[in-house]
Amino acid sequence: MEETILLPAGFWLTGLHCGIKSSANHDLGLIHSEPPATAFGFFTKNDVKAAPVIYCEKSLSQNNQVSQVLVNSGNANACTGKLGMDNLLETVSMLKEKFQSKAEVLMCSTGVIGEQLPMGKLKAGIEKLSLPDGPNNPNGFAASIMTTDTVPKISSREIFIEGQKISFTAFCKGAGMIQPNMATMLAYVICDLKFASNMKEALREVVDKSFNSITVDGDMSTNDTVLFLGNGASGLDFDKLSEEDKKLVLDTLADICIEQAKKIVADGEGATKVVQIDINGAPNAEVGKKLARQVANSPLVKTAIFGRDPNWGRILASLGSVSAGLHPDSINISLCAVPVFTNGGPADFDEADLVHKMGEKDILLSVELGLGDASWTYWTCDLTYDYIKINADYHT
Amino acid sequence: MEETILLPAGFWLTGLHCGIKSSANHDLGLIHSEPPATAFGFFTKNDVKAAPVIYCEKSLSQNNQVSQVLVNSGNANACTGKLGMDNLLETVSMLKEKFQSKAEVLMCSTGVIGEQLPMGKLKAGIEKLSLPDGPNNPNGFAASIMTTDTVPKISSREIFIEGQKISFTAFCKGAGMIQPNMATMLAYVICDLKFASNMKEALREVVDKSFNSITVDGDMSTNDTVLFLGNGASGLDFDKLSEEDKKLVLDTLADICIEQAKKIVADGEGATKVVQIDINGAPNAEVGKKLARQVANSPLVKTAIFGRDPNWGRILASLGSVSAGLHPDSINISLCAVPVFTNGGPADFDEADLVHKMGEKDILLSVELGLGDASWTYWTCDLTYDYIKINADYHT
Repeated sequence: MEETILLPAGFWLTGLHCGIKSSANHDLGLIHSEPPATAFGFFTKNDVKAAPVIYCEKSLSQNNQVSQVLVNSGNANACTGKLGMDNLLETVSMLKEKFQSKAEVLMCSTGVIGEQLPMGKLKAGIEKLSLPDGPNNPNGFAASIMTTDTVPKISSREIFIEGQKISFTAFCKGAGMIQPNMATMLAYVICDLKFASNMKEALREVVDKSFNSITVDGDMSTNDTVLFLGNGASGLDFDKLSEEDKKLVLDTLADICIEQAKKIVADGEGATKVVQIDINGAPNAEVGKKLARQVANSPLVKTAIFGRDPNWGRILASLGSVSAGLHPDSINISLCAVPVFTNGGPADFDEADLVHKMGEKDILLSVELGLGDASWTYWTCDLTYDYIKINADYHT
Repeated sequence: MEETILLPAGFWLTGLHCGIKSSANHDLGLIHSEPPATAFGFFTKNDVKAAPVIYCEKSLSQNNQVSQVLVNSGNANACTGKLGMDNLLETVSMLKEKFQSKAEVLMCSTGVIGEQLPMGKLKAGIEKLSLPDGPNNPNGFAASIMTTDTVPKISSREIFIEGQKISFTAFCKGAGMIQPNMATMLAYVICDLKFASNMKEALREVVDKSFNSITVDGDMSTNDTVLFLGNGASGLDFDKLSEEDKKLVLDTLADICIEQAKKIVADGEGATKVVQIDINGAPNAEVGKKLARQVANSPLVKTAIFGRDPNWGRILASLGSVSAGLHPDSINISLCAVPVFTNGGPADFDEADLVHKMGEKDILLSVELGLGDASWTYWTCDLTYDYIKINADYHT
């Protein structure tokens, strides 16, 4: 089932199986951009950073023009010490030579930690990567970054500026890993608009409201990476756009990133539901985000959603546990648009009807705090038997 | 199966069924102290506080001499507004009259939230409470504070100071509630040594290292309460003890509280294992506690323990996610006393042997950070299918 993908001009993608995974699935992918793209990266805040995270952060701080991004799945190259970094540098050199790269080459990894990259298999795989004159294969790339994701995750958008089409495509992988023992999120957003050097803060905000506003189990990986690549092949340059068009571009980036982030949650380990948590009436966005994250990570709330239980008590207790100075009397909570707690007391609602509504896959949990006018949205999944099965029924 | 309980002098306890619970289980308990005890209370930090928490905090700030503590289970008296507080005040007045109380009366509740106390049943229950000349019934009290705890939790200690016996008994209930939809911890530590007014900070430290260092699911209740009562019936007064004897008393209190805290974890919802997490080599205790709490709440670590998976990668990623400035190269991790990660790399261990060791009920997870000489210990349980069953297979 191939999706129709609106691939930005100047990008060429591929993926193949080189044997890092014991299965026959793809495990090596490449993004190639000609002309080189202006790149921005956002990485895990974990003290324990994998070699590719350390490398990409450093590389982008020195030169943000990127020709190729190589991604492997099946091995995270984390906790691998000096040999892990040497292996990465050797791989990057090999890539630069093969493609005669005009700009930098980045590398990302996801998979089992504490094991060295199988360099023989990796090199053989790189040999087999066709040159960018071969057929474009975005589905192959999407497959190559998957671990135990059950579906590839691709989103596309088109906008028109000054009569010129600009295309965006985003790829990501999510939280569904058994073999590697660790959920890693990788996301790539490519675009044929030339990105400007001053876009970092705007993109950070995009990431904050999308990939940084989702949770499956509250655990943070050693390899989390989001890369934005804008190559200018459309002939347009972000820097030269009107303020209105800049906003259109950023809104489109936010839109595509939120769609991708929600796909990660929907494919979360054991998930049967996607829960959108809207916190409104917060004193400021930071507090709104903290409260939304707390509810999104509450095992009691997540199991209640799984059990179709309109349990406002757990939601309220979770909000209160942040110690954000809430006044219970001014709090309103609704589930699937049905008020369940209003102005400090239980609301009178048709329980059978609400339990029926909670049978849907998409659940809206909305909270009005009555403290200010800031808001934040977070997405999470339910906590199910299959989460336990996936994460417990396995021996390293 | 009655335990032998070393009850402190001057305390009289009882419990009965008055009908707040739909089952036939005990749901009303009383602690009576003659002479009145010096009391210290530690309460939930949740913004959403139940009426009894608000009442006890205020009452103890005005007068810390306490004659009776009434506890009901089956109804938390939380999110019940003015009527909830009026009901509490009426109950306390009734108690004061019945017992001709010389000092204050406290009340604690645990159970379903958002429902008013059934005052008819509660009053009838109070009428039935025998006077302190009846038989002492500590097991009845322990039963009366249970919700879905599977076992009552009582611990006793005796020490001798100046040839005089001092007895300590502690009762608690833990995190195992379906009907009330919210885990509440209640704990009562009674002692026949007269507590001194300047003991609060020392007791806070005791609570910090015991009840505040356990987690089942990271959720914080609206009703959590720990009460210490020291009545002086032994003839001894904390204030007049030597520094060495004071230390003995505080060590005994810490010991009994840790034992109780571990009983809560062992009886956590769906738990099959008690995991002790020792963080050593931390730059300070605060950081040690943060790291221990993070690992203790990681669903990936908790499911790995359930699955007997010596998964050091999840432990390391969880530690790193605190962003505490850790250096992976100096970290050592052991499981069941078997080193699994040493000086930044995987250790060579006998996996079959370790998986066998992880079949035990008690699991020791020990981390050496190599950053300083502070340490902290946290206790958690594993995350199992039964946690999901208990919390999802239920409709409010």
